[in-house]
Amino acid sequence: MGSSVASRPAWIAVDWGSSNLRAWALDGADRVIGEANSARGMLDLTPDAFEGALLEAIGDWLPAAEPATEVLICGMAGARQGWVEAAYLPLETPPSEVLSRLATRLTPVPTRDARLDVQILPGLCQRPGSGSATAGFDVMRGEETQLAGLLARQPGFEGAVCLPGTHAKWARLEAGRLLDFGTYMSGELYKLLRQDSVLRHSLAAAESAEDLADEAQQAAFLAGIDTAVAAPARLSAELFGIRARDLLDASLPAGEARGAVLGARLSGLVLGLELAGATSRLPAGGRVVLIGAEALCQRYRLALEHLGFAVGTQANADMILAGLGRIHHASRSPSPTP
Amino acid sequence: MGSSVASRPAWIAVDWGSSNLRAWALDGADRVIGEANSARGMLDLTPDAFEGALLEAIGDWLPAAEPATEVLICGMAGARQGWVEAAYLPLETPPSEVLSRLATRLTPVPTRDARLDVQILPGLCQRPGSGSATAGFDVMRGEETQLAGLLARQPGFEGAVCLPGTHAKWARLEAGRLLDFGTYMSGELYKLLRQDSVLRHSLAAAESAEDLADEAQQAAFLAGIDTAVAAPARLSAELFGIRARDLLDASLPAGEARGAVLGARLSGLVLGLELAGATSRLPAGGRVVLIGAEALCQRYRLALEHLGFAVGTQANADMILAGLGRIHHASRSPSPTP
Repeated sequence: MGSSVASRPAWIAVDWGSSNLRAWALDGADRVIGEANSARGMLDLTPDAFEGALLEAIGDWLPAAEPATEVLICGMAGARQGWVEAAYLPLETPPSEVLSRLATRLTPVPTRDARLDVQILPGLCQRPGSGSATAGFDVMRGEETQLAGLLARQPGFEGAVCLPGTHAKWARLEAGRLLDFGTYMSGELYKLLRQDSVLRHSLAAAESAEDLADEAQQAAFLAGIDTAVAAPARLSAELFGIRARDLLDASLPAGEARGAVLGARLSGLVLGLELAGATSRLPAGGRVVLIGAEALCQRYRLALEHLGFAVGTQANADMILAGLGRIHHASRSPSPTP
Repeated sequence: MGSSVASRPAWIAVDWGSSNLRAWALDGADRVIGEANSARGMLDLTPDAFEGALLEAIGDWLPAAEPATEVLICGMAGARQGWVEAAYLPLETPPSEVLSRLATRLTPVPTRDARLDVQILPGLCQRPGSGSATAGFDVMRGEETQLAGLLARQPGFEGAVCLPGTHAKWARLEAGRLLDFGTYMSGELYKLLRQDSVLRHSLAAAESAEDLADEAQQAAFLAGIDTAVAAPARLSAELFGIRARDLLDASLPAGEARGAVLGARLSGLVLGLELAGATSRLPAGGRVVLIGAEALCQRYRLALEHLGFAVGTQANADMILAGLGRIHHASRSPSPTP
């Protein structure tokens, strides 16, 4: 449910992901005047249930009379299995300002409730040869908005951006252009290994037992990073090595601490493989901006600084609001005649 | 249940794994005179249930009167959670003939039934610095018997041995000595990704739809191998790429064939990562002997020959019987006085 708002919002920003939605009411100066969260993500909804789920979250913000309030949505609500499919915008060759053109490709969504004026942002897709020479098939939905937000805040930004998560995105930006991006499914891999593989017997039952502020765990995490970066091809052998260490390594602590240290190593190995791949084209000591949840960004920062990179962070919500704000204004301005 | 045997066996060989057991009755010349299988693997049994499960499988082979029949068991029955723990035999530095000493470290198992004389083989363990300089923590239970079997049949064997499976083992042998070994959990990784990850939506519902004899699938499998070998650090991005291909790649076939081709690519990527690691210290064009189930060995052979290695195969059961036979005879001969 959302907080109540004192005045009618000028527009509403929504980040609608697979497993939840976040909405913000904004005034005419793009100040947040209300916020709402819901656990009704795309995966839980059939197309005809989206409007009701949205009204549940933001209905209180809407005035009784017209005109309709603009609701700008990014994320998985625009997937094929979502509310209305918002076709991917393709990266182009040579790299163009695709992030500036999101506003020109909004998909309007018909609603039963006349108080709503809903539009969904496109995601981005990449095919081999598009963007950069080494780009492969890839897609994003939602992260393009955060990248647009970063450029709105730092128009001259150049460098690598990482958005950690179940499927982490890495993007390379240069002079306002998105060169290419890649998706690393490390978060999902870690979860599968932790919960469903033979390694679960060697890990702490509760993930809450794990804390990288603990010295032994931090050392095990960074050793995992180093091991994977030094020999990525040995990853699946190093994974089994966690089980073997549990059986053989006399230097490990006993009890819960043992599982927590081995869990930290697992996290380091899986993240290390991602970093070995994602940072391979960055200059040594280069800069990486992290956009994401704080705890996860901390883990990435620790690893990246250990590897010698300079790390900045931006909060998820800030970048989404900056991105949607830029698109909101661009879609409201008269476009130049082609 | 087992087949009946015409005469009293001289001894009985048992390979008792996590999920099943296979037993063979042998005559005085080590000829197989009976065979039994059971689905009662180590994971299904508490320690006091092993004797009953064994008698269910081989009870018919035992004569009513004494003397007791020797039953030699390799595999997970000797694990800590098994029947009786058979401590690991450690690899030594410099590499010694550890495979010849298995017979000197049998663990006798007390039984209620006086017709049984049961002994369990040790597994092998490896710690950093043992075996070779690059060895890490690792363990095996069961595969040591197959390696001993290979040396029994080919005493001068030198080269790499691969035992594919849920947790594939790779061993390097030289002049009758085991230099080192490594366990790659590719089989488990593949199963987790296929069944439980986001990729499942892009794969054929039935694994039976997949067949590497199909030209498109074989090409996709080998492309996966090449991709992982060329850039192992990009594995988790290439994994997500399977999902993106499903959404974007116009060259893919439709329907079941689409999922089968993408499944073959997944298999190639995961196996390719293993091969990149496991073959990194083999000479180009070197020889690899595969010991395992036929279908899985076929897949490994296809990939290894594609990468330029010379491949030989040995049947699982042959190597187990040769290994247990060697140990049976060695444990019956008088040992030299130290």
